[in-house]
Amino acid sequence: MKKWFVSQLKSGQAVTELFVLAEKTLSHKKDGAPYLSIALSDKTGRVRGVVWDNVEQIADAAAAGDVVRVQGHISEYRGGLQVVVKGLEPAETGADPADFLPATRRNPEQMLERIKALGQAVSSDVLRGLLDAFWNDAGFVAQFKQAPAAKKMHHAYIGGLLEHSLSLALLADRVAGHYSGIDRDLLITGAILHDIGKINEFVFDTNIDYSSEGRLVSHIVIGVGMLEEKIRQIPDFPKQTALLLRHMMVSHHGSRELGSPEPPKTLEAVLLNYLDEIDAKIKGIREFMESQDADAEWTGYHKPLERFFFRGTPETQG
Amino acid sequence: MKKWFVSQLKSGQAVTELFVLAEKTLSHKKDGAPYLSIALSDKTGRVRGVVWDNVEQIADAAAAGDVVRVQGHISEYRGGLQVVVKGLEPAETGADPADFLPATRRNPEQMLERIKALGQAVSSDVLRGLLDAFWNDAGFVAQFKQAPAAKKMHHAYIGGLLEHSLSLALLADRVAGHYSGIDRDLLITGAILHDIGKINEFVFDTNIDYSSEGRLVSHIVIGVGMLEEKIRQIPDFPKQTALLLRHMMVSHHGSRELGSPEPPKTLEAVLLNYLDEIDAKIKGIREFMESQDADAEWTGYHKPLERFFFRGTPETQG
Amino acid sequence: MKKWFVSQLKSGQAVTELFVLAEKTLSHKKDGAPYLSIALSDKTGRVRGVVWDNVEQIADAAAAGDVVRVQGHISEYRGGLQVVVKGLEPAETGADPADFLPATRRNPEQMLERIKALGQAVSSDVLRGLLDAFWNDAGFVAQFKQAPAAKKMHHAYIGGLLEHSLSLALLADRVAGHYSGIDRDLLITGAILHDIGKINEFVFDTNIDYSSEGRLVSHIVIGVGMLEEKIRQIPDFPKQTALLLRHMMVSHHGSRELGSPEPPKTLEAVLLNYLDEIDAKIKGIREFMESQDADAEWTGYHKPLERFFFRGTPETQG
Amino acid sequence: MKKWFVSQLKSGQAVTELFVLAEKTLSHKKDGAPYLSIALSDKTGRVRGVVWDNVEQIADAAAAGDVVRVQGHISEYRGGLQVVVKGLEPAETGADPADFLPATRRNPEQMLERIKALGQAVSSDVLRGLLDAFWNDAGFVAQFKQAPAAKKMHHAYIGGLLEHSLSLALLADRVAGHYSGIDRDLLITGAILHDIGKINEFVFDTNIDYSSEGRLVSHIVIGVGMLEEKIRQIPDFPKQTALLLRHMMVSHHGSRELGSPEPPKTLEAVLLNYLDEIDAKIKGIREFMESQDADAEWTGYHKPLERFFFRGTPETQG
Amino acid sequence: MKKWFVSQLKSGQAVTELFVLAEKTLSHKKDGAPYLSIALSDKTGRVRGVVWDNVEQIADAAAAGDVVRVQGHISEYRGGLQVVVKGLEPAETGADPADFLPATRRNPEQMLERIKALGQAVSSDVLRGLLDAFWNDAGFVAQFKQAPAAKKMHHAYIGGLLEHSLSLALLADRVAGHYSGIDRDLLITGAILHDIGKINEFVFDTNIDYSSEGRLVSHIVIGVGMLEEKIRQIPDFPKQTALLLRHMMVSHHGSRELGSPEPPKTLEAVLLNYLDEIDAKIKGIREFMESQDADAEWTGYHKPLERFFFRGTPETQG
Amino acid sequence: MKKWFVSQLKSGQAVTELFVLAEKTLSHKKDGAPYLSIALSDKTGRVRGVVWDNVEQIADAAAAGDVVRVQGHISEYRGGLQVVVKGLEPAETGADPADFLPATRRNPEQMLERIKALGQAVSSDVLRGLLDAFWNDAGFVAQFKQAPAAKKMHHAYIGGLLEHSLSLALLADRVAGHYSGIDRDLLITGAILHDIGKINEFVFDTNIDYSSEGRLVSHIVIGVGMLEEKIRQIPDFPKQTALLLRHMMVSHHGSRELGSPEPPKTLEAVLLNYLDEIDAKIKGIREFMESQDADAEWTGYHKPLERFFFRGTPETQG
Repeated sequence: MKKWFVSQLKSGQAVTELFVLAEKTLSHKKDGAPYLSIALSDKTGRVRGVVWDNVEQIADAAAAGDVVRVQGHISEYRGGLQVVVKGLEPAETGADPADFLPATRRNPEQMLERIKALGQAVSSDVLRGLLDAFWNDAGFVAQFKQAPAAKKMHHAYIGGLLEHSLSLALLADRVAGHYSGIDRDLLITGAILHDIGKINEFVFDTNIDYSSEGRLVSHIVIGVGMLEEKIRQIPDFPKQTALLLRHMMVSHHGSRELGSPEPPKTLEAVLLNYLDEIDAKIKGIREFMESQDADAEWTGYHKPLERFFFRGTPETQG
Repeated sequence: MKKWFVSQLKSGQAVTELFVLAEKTLSHKKDGAPYLSIALSDKTGRVRGVVWDNVEQIADAAAAGDVVRVQGHISEYRGGLQVVVKGLEPAETGADPADFLPATRRNPEQMLERIKALGQAVSSDVLRGLLDAFWNDAGFVAQFKQAPAAKKMHHAYIGGLLEHSLSLALLADRVAGHYSGIDRDLLITGAILHDIGKINEFVFDTNIDYSSEGRLVSHIVIGVGMLEEKIRQIPDFPKQTALLLRHMMVSHHGSRELGSPEPPKTLEAVLLNYLDEIDAKIKGIREFMESQDADAEWTGYHKPLERFFFRGTPETQG
Repeated sequence: MKKWFVSQLKSGQAVTELFVLAEKTLSHKKDGAPYLSIALSDKTGRVRGVVWDNVEQIADAAAAGDVVRVQGHISEYRGGLQVVVKGLEPAETGADPADFLPATRRNPEQMLERIKALGQAVSSDVLRGLLDAFWNDAGFVAQFKQAPAAKKMHHAYIGGLLEHSLSLALLADRVAGHYSGIDRDLLITGAILHDIGKINEFVFDTNIDYSSEGRLVSHIVIGVGMLEEKIRQIPDFPKQTALLLRHMMVSHHGSRELGSPEPPKTLEAVLLNYLDEIDAKIKGIREFMESQDADAEWTGYHKPLERFFFRGTPETQG
Repeated sequence: MKKWFVSQLKSGQAVTELFVLAEKTLSHKKDGAPYLSIALSDKTGRVRGVVWDNVEQIADAAAAGDVVRVQGHISEYRGGLQVVVKGLEPAETGADPADFLPATRRNPEQMLERIKALGQAVSSDVLRGLLDAFWNDAGFVAQFKQAPAAKKMHHAYIGGLLEHSLSLALLADRVAGHYSGIDRDLLITGAILHDIGKINEFVFDTNIDYSSEGRLVSHIVIGVGMLEEKIRQIPDFPKQTALLLRHMMVSHHGSRELGSPEPPKTLEAVLLNYLDEIDAKIKGIREFMESQDADAEWTGYHKPLERFFFRGTPETQG
Repeated sequence: MKKWFVSQLKSGQAVTELFVLAEKTLSHKKDGAPYLSIALSDKTGRVRGVVWDNVEQIADAAAAGDVVRVQGHISEYRGGLQVVVKGLEPAETGADPADFLPATRRNPEQMLERIKALGQAVSSDVLRGLLDAFWNDAGFVAQFKQAPAAKKMHHAYIGGLLEHSLSLALLADRVAGHYSGIDRDLLITGAILHDIGKINEFVFDTNIDYSSEGRLVSHIVIGVGMLEEKIRQIPDFPKQTALLLRHMMVSHHGSRELGSPEPPKTLEAVLLNYLDEIDAKIKGIREFMESQDADAEWTGYHKPLERFFFRGTPETQG
Repeated sequence: MKKWFVSQLKSGQAVTELFVLAEKTLSHKKDGAPYLSIALSDKTGRVRGVVWDNVEQIADAAAAGDVVRVQGHISEYRGGLQVVVKGLEPAETGADPADFLPATRRNPEQMLERIKALGQAVSSDVLRGLLDAFWNDAGFVAQFKQAPAAKKMHHAYIGGLLEHSLSLALLADRVAGHYSGIDRDLLITGAILHDIGKINEFVFDTNIDYSSEGRLVSHIVIGVGMLEEKIRQIPDFPKQTALLLRHMMVSHHGSRELGSPEPPKTLEAVLLNYLDEIDAKIKGIREFMESQDADAEWTGYHKPLERFFFRGTPETQG
């Protein structure tokens, strides 16, 4: 069991611990002596490392992607930390994969139960039947519980897809009643299923990355295929309902520029798009704020959103 | 009291009724005889009219913008209706202005009470005090109850600003609890006040149009001035709270392209922008759907949103 | 059998002929007398019409969309022609649908044979097998021969999809050999199949328009579904080949802005996108040039492409 | 008094001098020994520094932002210079702040007199009165003389706001008479006041940066508030003149994309926007040219303007 | 000599006058009788006309583009005027072309003298020589005096190019001294010559329109060709000066989006672009304001600039 | 003659070889000792180098841009290679320039013969005559054979312009017959000449870079000047043909945003633009793919095209 994680490392500390050997490069010092420049990672982040001694032996001991046991101490280097490695060998079997990929802080089983319960509360037999078809597909459920919702930006961790889908469905549940004329069943079903294509858009064994299918076809097109497959298996599924669900999935990014071949053209699709945007952005900004210096009024620059964010300072308001 | 409104007129009908004389043009037929081409309006819409007889006398009887009593009958012309006018004279005094501008279908007093109650539920003394400062300003309240929220697109009618502000504040109330770390008081106060500048952005006596101030300065800048004025009157108003409120007003359009000099940089401002967008778009699309042929699966083309909308057909879903 | 088509009508002519009653509106003259304003269409275009006599009887005789026999004469009205209708009655049975929708000038059977032959020349058994699966699907072939390739702009007529697909496949055949490293089989298969989703994107019985499915889901997503269905039916279809074909279909519009969820990421997909663009634009510009005054150096303004086109004047060049 | 400034340092030189300790990071060498990586700045620029000895003692001696006395010598490192620090201690009191922030090369008092004189030449009593209200506000004048006009790009130094405002007002004076129908008084008053909000948009004690208010509200909104405050204090200030001035301030960036909630809608506002653009760009490009290798025909790449600039070579032209 | 111009026509008036027959269409009334729908124009504008009698004879009397003598009277039709034509025949010879195209209100000879004088004040022999080469080219001068500066928007009239070039050169003269480091000679020469390509970009005999060369190659490329031709004729013209002039012409639209293949990369080119923009926009907005209702505070909507413009109302300012 | 090229260097190797001294910077180690940081290049790429001994003597031995003989050995440094230089002196005369700039892998003479032959096959005497005028201009031919087609992205090597022009002309030849109504002669002539301005847009003696003329005027404007010059020398060259050729050159980038002052307005210009785009992109992507790790399914990120490219893995397809 891991005791020390990347995010806990401090300059000066000695450490003997399991990490993923994320990168490995053999280099030479100016005097010609070889050394090994590496990167180590676990679920809390990534740290540079360097091997000065026994370089060749250690270089041969493991491949990038392997879980390894590292012995060394921590120093500071160019404003960050690095591990000066004394020893590195393949990890004994039995390492817990959950230690090495970032994961949701919430309980996946409980989240799954909660999202299923939301589905059970849908009053349309047809839509409840569709959701059941997904829950009865054990392979799907296993991946839906594991998959991240993104490579970075928001919910970029194991269980992130489930966490995001649940949060969005709960948000949809809150908002559905605010406007008359919204088909609540459709909105909630759409919220639960909108991103299912992501289970095949990403690979996430020791690292979260896009799959070839994800890059070549996109999770929207993958998801529509998964949806159509389940609908085909349900006898007499109403055609218009199927079309409305496919449309919600196709249009949930809101515009062509953002990857939806068609923009939302029903009230439920319009609402789903905005709520998805809210859940992704609010979660992403909060993750970003948490990753920053806790005392500062302002965060650093958030490149994708092109701005700094303000957290302010405590102030007595009476 | 008006009995017949523009939206109720039917081809073949005789009518004697009050309308706003929205437009008036003297023209000549091919044989040189003069005639008068006019437009008549009330709160339900606008209709073309034509005067063949007593043209000059009628032309002198009233100016564009006046409320007039019209006598004539309805015919069809180029796919629409027109009033063939036999008589037209200034309306007797006592016409109810509410008959001539489109207005909210809801009760303004009740809406006002409800939005005040939302403000009362704000737990911060300072913010409650700020809201009270607005409610205690009778001139403000009178305009806030009357003003439209837009010239067209959504809530473009008397009372529309209040209706939109209330709907947005209620929506904010629903959503505020969904995410931890949101300052609910700030969000709701921001929702109530975000568009107050619109009371001076529009003129709305017999017609809704932009004021010179609205076109030259924008409701965002007008609103910030109104907000700063009230804050100055409250002793020891906390500086950061004032700044956060000004920021929410400045940024509520979401981006520079949409008229906000700065984009949202706090969680509450980000959320306010999305919820405002939802309320405006969902209301606007529903108004558009209602204005269209009730039996058709698809609406006509919605130019500003560049798409058709789908309403579907009833379908038994079990 | 029709003798006179819309494009042949001339001012002054008397005519008794079949047309589609494309539009029908009952109006009233200034003196209150009713008249009927209609539009008539066939495969060569559309013309306005007006009924002054027997208005009500004629108004009841047929509905918009019906094929009708019209008796009247042609006059000029506001720079265009109109049919002054004396009589109008439902067409006797037996009218040839091909007379009423614009259609390809080429022979559909021959085009189909030619595109099949191109497919036969594909050397990969797997891809040839896939193409055969489509050709063996009689329902698909029937629609593929009929469908238009667009509502307007280019190939917007019965048989347009087949004509465009064949032209693109032949163009791909010419270009494939110009660059080394191109998978010719994949490129040609992709060219043949890239737009198959259009058979469900449009409805085209008496008029070409988007279907609900087309508007809500887009032909790209429809087409991927059709492709995946056929691939599933072929045992052991190579996974990477399936992925490459799905990618070509997904990316053939070239960018997200133009409706492709992912841009082209293989050489064949990049090439397919450019060649599709060439075939659509060159055909569209030529159709536009042909629709314009034959003697003028310059066409009128082409709105979608935002320019005038130059045809020049004959010039002896030695 | 400082003798040596950053821009004058040369490799090999020994130096004992005051600088701002702009940055401070404790690091460790590969052998575990600690060292201090710092940045030093003054009004002429910024230079890296390194402390190899007495590291911990020196690290505790001063905080980032302090003015410090540094003893060391200059070496070259990765294509730039660095100070190898032997000693570093808090500066004795009495250091001149003007030594540490870049400042205008021109005389602020003279510039102030000149801009006041321009205002005196305005013939409208009302506008002259408004300008006087600003000049009589000692707190405003003190900040107006100090504030920079930007964080970088152009006039990014102490006194830059005054220098830019004066240059713009003089330019407006030259151009005003070229076109008939321009209200010269309005244009010059607008030019003098257009950027006053910048006195609160920036903080500029030892470093120029955005203030929280600047980032959250923007200098345009801040400036309008300052303008409205002064106008309120002048009895019977003409409403339209107030509106025209507010509009010039609101619209002076020229378009929404550039931060103006409304684009210029009067001749004077249109002209002010262009002249402001000229003054900012010409000054910015000249500053950039001066910062580059004096002998080269071409400057390096100017990222914000996305181009290289050409200065050419002397050439006899007769 | 013309007495009545289009802009002076009033409803009810009888008129016998020369116009350009700008358009001519033979139509038929509902009863089958033919009539002629025409447009008449002169330098002050364009008016619709209609011929009810002697239609065929009049239709044959003249072709579109001819100057014709029209006899008739003025009536109002759909909110505008129209000429009810009684007689129409080819104009006797000797009509003054200046009556039929809109033209500058200023004296072309005086403007030419003034722009030449500006050129004479250039101190560089080489640039003065270049300008002389243009002034000595009688064919060029004749066209330069006649050409419009645009088809619409600004200076869209005979002599507009000269008027715009002179105004720009005078403006450049005013601004050149404001900044040090500007090559005044180069700036003024560039201002005088920047648009010379327009003499071939437009045709302007009885109507201002683009020439084929203008549409296919653009005035920028045409102008560079004219400039290079003159430079070639001057022995030992300095290469860098030639390059700087070509660059000013190439870049004077400011960006690729606006038609300049390269953006301005010298101080003089940057300045020329802004000043050209000022002169075009200020002139265009003023022309637009003058074309609008003189009493209204606001103009109508200016489509290309996407806004209304404000002229305000007279106000006593003390 | 060079034996070792940059792309062949391997860590650990000793080398004595000619390179271009592409960069040279004198620096100091932390102990104050000077060292020299350099870059060496040849036609296959660029490598960093460092000189620890005899630094000053070697620093004086050669200037950046010189061909030098380097003696040293290769080590690895920060993930790349570097040359640890022991000796460096100016190269003996007689170094072959072709060794130092990247060059086409194809035979320039053969390419020239082939492109001339394509021109000979043009049936129009006038166009053939124009091409001959270029081929008979020895200075032009020498540069046309040498010039690169770009600084980077595609065909960025000696002979690249000729290779690209030939490839495009051959592609045009393949495609010309696919559509009726294309003037094949014009298309092929345009393809051969479209980029001739590049011979002056670049300098390419020891390094490929933009010339001042290229940056200030662009190859499109340069090329039009060269074309007009040749056309002037041909008596009675048909005006319209000249205009069509100038238009093809002006518009071949396809849109203003991409540097064409006018977009393509003839069928041939439209086609030339697309084919040029195909040839540039397909070649550029293939060069990029070849520069990447040969075993990986995916290339690295292609910044200008904003995507990764997929090469896949070999797969048996039957």
